[in-house]
Amino acid sequence: MPVLVMKFGGTSVANLDRIRRAAKRVGVEVAKGYDVIVIVSAMAGETNKLVGYVEEISPLFDAREYDAVVSSGENVTAGLMALTLQEMGVPARSWQGWQVPVRTTDAHAAARIEEIPTDNINTKFAEGMRVAVVAGFQGIGPDGRITTLGRGGSDTTAVAFAAAFGAERCDIYTDVDGVYTTDPRICEKARKLDRIAFEEMLELASLGAKVLQTRSVEMAMRYHVKLRVLSSFEEQSDEAGTLVCDEEDVMESKPVAGVAYSRDEAKLTLLSVADRPGIAATIFTALSDAGVNVDMIVQNISEEGRTDMTFSCPVGEVARAEAALSEIKEKGALNYSELVVDRDVAKVSVVGIGMRSQSGVAAKMFKVLSDEGINIKVITTSEIKISVLIDRKYMELAVQALHDAFELDKAA
Amino acid sequence: MPVLVMKFGGTSVANLDRIRRAAKRVGVEVAKGYDVIVIVSAMAGETNKLVGYVEEISPLFDAREYDAVVSSGENVTAGLMALTLQEMGVPARSWQGWQVPVRTTDAHAAARIEEIPTDNINTKFAEGMRVAVVAGFQGIGPDGRITTLGRGGSDTTAVAFAAAFGAERCDIYTDVDGVYTTDPRICEKARKLDRIAFEEMLELASLGAKVLQTRSVEMAMRYHVKLRVLSSFEEQSDEAGTLVCDEEDVMESKPVAGVAYSRDEAKLTLLSVADRPGIAATIFTALSDAGVNVDMIVQNISEEGRTDMTFSCPVGEVARAEAALSEIKEKGALNYSELVVDRDVAKVSVVGIGMRSQSGVAAKMFKVLSDEGINIKVITTSEIKISVLIDRKYMELAVQALHDAFELDKAA
Repeated sequence: MPVLVMKFGGTSVANLDRIRRAAKRVGVEVAKGYDVIVIVSAMAGETNKLVGYVEEISPLFDAREYDAVVSSGENVTAGLMALTLQEMGVPARSWQGWQVPVRTTDAHAAARIEEIPTDNINTKFAEGMRVAVVAGFQGIGPDGRITTLGRGGSDTTAVAFAAAFGAERCDIYTDVDGVYTTDPRICEKARKLDRIAFEEMLELASLGAKVLQTRSVEMAMRYHVKLRVLSSFEEQSDEAGTLVCDEEDVMESKPVAGVAYSRDEAKLTLLSVADRPGIAATIFTALSDAGVNVDMIVQNISEEGRTDMTFSCPVGEVARAEAALSEIKEKGALNYSELVVDRDVAKVSVVGIGMRSQSGVAAKMFKVLSDEGINIKVITTSEIKISVLIDRKYMELAVQALHDAFELDKAA
Repeated sequence: MPVLVMKFGGTSVANLDRIRRAAKRVGVEVAKGYDVIVIVSAMAGETNKLVGYVEEISPLFDAREYDAVVSSGENVTAGLMALTLQEMGVPARSWQGWQVPVRTTDAHAAARIEEIPTDNINTKFAEGMRVAVVAGFQGIGPDGRITTLGRGGSDTTAVAFAAAFGAERCDIYTDVDGVYTTDPRICEKARKLDRIAFEEMLELASLGAKVLQTRSVEMAMRYHVKLRVLSSFEEQSDEAGTLVCDEEDVMESKPVAGVAYSRDEAKLTLLSVADRPGIAATIFTALSDAGVNVDMIVQNISEEGRTDMTFSCPVGEVARAEAALSEIKEKGALNYSELVVDRDVAKVSVVGIGMRSQSGVAAKMFKVLSDEGINIKVITTSEIKISVLIDRKYMELAVQALHDAFELDKAA
C-alpha cells in the first residue's frame, strides 16, 4: 500500500481533544488506503517546560542529559496517539526514536539523521498494522544515547521518514493553513500559495517565515519529497494547504513568489580597515567564534589600501560582535578607525525562482522603495532573492508596497 | 569501590529544589567513597497525570502503549538528577531502563525484572563516573518494547540493582522516616523501629503499611539486600530510618514487632454448602476468575455432609463476589442455602518473628480484645502473624490496646 507521512506539531496535539481530532484526520487517510506514518511533537508547552527545568539546573548543561530529558514529551504524545487510533479501531502502535531506530550523529541537541532502517515498521505494516506513530525530534546516537535534532526537529523527522519509506507525500499539520505571499499580520492582502518551490520555501524559511524548519525543506528538496503544509484546525480537502515541491511542479510563473522580512537587524560598519588578504577571514572567524550570526556582508570599494566592511546581524548579538572586534583589534590582528553601529534596521526580501529568467526584478524593487521615500542601506542578491536593509520604521510600508507592486495578491 | 543504591520516590523529587536536596544526600555518600546508583521515580503527580491521559482515551488500553507513555516521567527525573549532580561537580550520567538494559518479562504494566547486566554501568564507574542515575519502574521486554513494573515499581528496581551490583545497602528515601510499630495516625504511641526482619516487613506491607512495595521486600529477602527506609526531608545520620534485614541481624527479641490493620474488609459466609471434595476449589477459582482478592478463609466443622464456608475480601469487591457465586450456583456447580455478607468488619494483625519461639501470643491477643469487649469474628494464623476480623468500629481501639499490651512503645 502507498505510504503517507503525517506530522502533527505541538499545538495540533496540545490536549486529548486535539489528539482525537488529529487521529480522525489520520483515519481519513487510512480509509483511502494509505499506510500512514504519523510523526508527533510534544504537547504544546511540554518541551518548553522541560527545557526550563534543564536550564534552571545548569546553564551550561550536558547536552546528552538535555536530550534524555526533553525527548520525553514526544514519547508521551506518540503513545497517546497510538491509543487514540486503536480506540477508533485503527491498528496502530508507537515507536520511540531508538526503537526504529532513527540513527543520528552524536551532535547532541543538534543531531542530524543518518539512517532510518525501514524493516521494523514495514514488517508491522505487512502484518496489518495501518499506522506507525513515531516520536519526532529524536534519535539514537552512535554511543546508544538519545539524541535530539534541535528545536522544530519533528519536521525533519517527518521528511526523513517520507524519504526513507518512499512516501507519496509528507503532510505537515500546523496552526497555519499554508504558506503565504507575506505575513498576513503585516499585509492584509497576503494570499495563501497553492504551491511553492523548495528553493523559495528555503529562502522564506531562513528569512523568518517560521512555517517549516529549514533543514526539513533542504532534505525534502534533496530527496524530492512532496511536502504539504496545512492546518489541523480546519476541515481539509486533498487540495488544502500549500504544496512545497520541485520547481517544475509549480504552476505560477511570476518572478516573485513572496516578500519576507526580518525585523530586528543591526548594521555594523568597520571604517577604514587595512585591506589585505585574509582580513575578511580574520573578522568573520572572530565573529563566528563569538556566536554572532552574520547575515549580509558588503565590502565597499577600497581606497588607498583601506576599505569599509559592512555586515548585519540580529540586534541581540551586537554586544558580542563589538566585544569580539575590540579584542582582535587590541591583539593587533585587525586595524580599523571606527565601528559604526545602526541598531534600527530591518531586512526586506523578495523571493522567487521566476527572477532567474525574468530580468528587471531588482530594478523594480528599488524603484518601488524609492517611490515610497525609503532609503536602501545595504543590498545583497542571490539567484532567487534580493534583500535590502532599510530603516526599521519603514518595514511594514516596504512589505506592503512590494506586495502590491509584484501583484502577489493575485494568482498567476 | 563499594556500591550503594539510593532510591528517591516521587515526593522526594517533586520539584527542582527537592531534586537538589536529594542530590546533596547523594553527594554525601559519594564523599564517603561509595560509587552510587540512584534510582528515581517520576516527579510527584506526573505518573498520575499520564495514567489519567491513558485512561481517558481508552479504558481498556493497550498495556504496551500505556508503558510507553507512563515510563516517560522517570526519564525526565533521571536526566534532571544527573544534571544536578554534574552541576555540584559529581561525575554522573543517566540511564533509561532500555539502556542498561533492565530486561523484564513481557507482562506489560506488571512486568518482572529478569536480568540486569552490570557491564555498561561498571565500565563507567571504572572510568571515574561516581553516580549512575537510573530511571526506576521501567525495563525492556523480550520484544524490545518498554515495560513497567507496576505502581511503586521503583522500589523493586532499586533492590534489583542492589542485588545485581552487590551493593552494601539499598537506601529507600521516602516521605516517612521509617517503619513504625503501627500507624502513628491511629496510635500516638507508635514507635519507629530501628530494625525489622524481612518476613515481618512483608507481613506489614501486605497488611497495608504502604512504606515499601511488597515485591521489593521479597526480592531483598531472597538476595540478602540490606534495605533501609528513611526520610528525604530530614538531616540523616548513618543510623537514621529503619533497616529491613535478615532475621539474625534484628536485635529486638520481642514476640511482636508491630500491629497492622486493614480497614475496609468484608466477611462473606456461604451457609450449608455441600461438603464434598473439590468444592473449595470450585468456589475460590470462580472468585479468582472474577477478580476478587480473597484474604482469610475459614471452613467450619462439617455436619451431616454440609459445611459453612467463610472468607474475607475488600468491601469494594463484594458485588463481584456475589455475582460470581450466584453464577456457579445457577450452573449447579455449587449448592448453598444462603450467602451472608458483613460489610462492616476490619482486620487487625499482630506480626513478629519472635512468636515462633514464644508461645502464648495468640492467647494474649484474644484476652486483650476480650477485655475491651471486642468480639472476634474470624481468626487466621501464620507462623509470624495472627489476624482477626472484628467489627470495624472497634478497629482503632483494638490497635491501641494491642500496642499497649505488647509494649511496642518501648524498645526491647
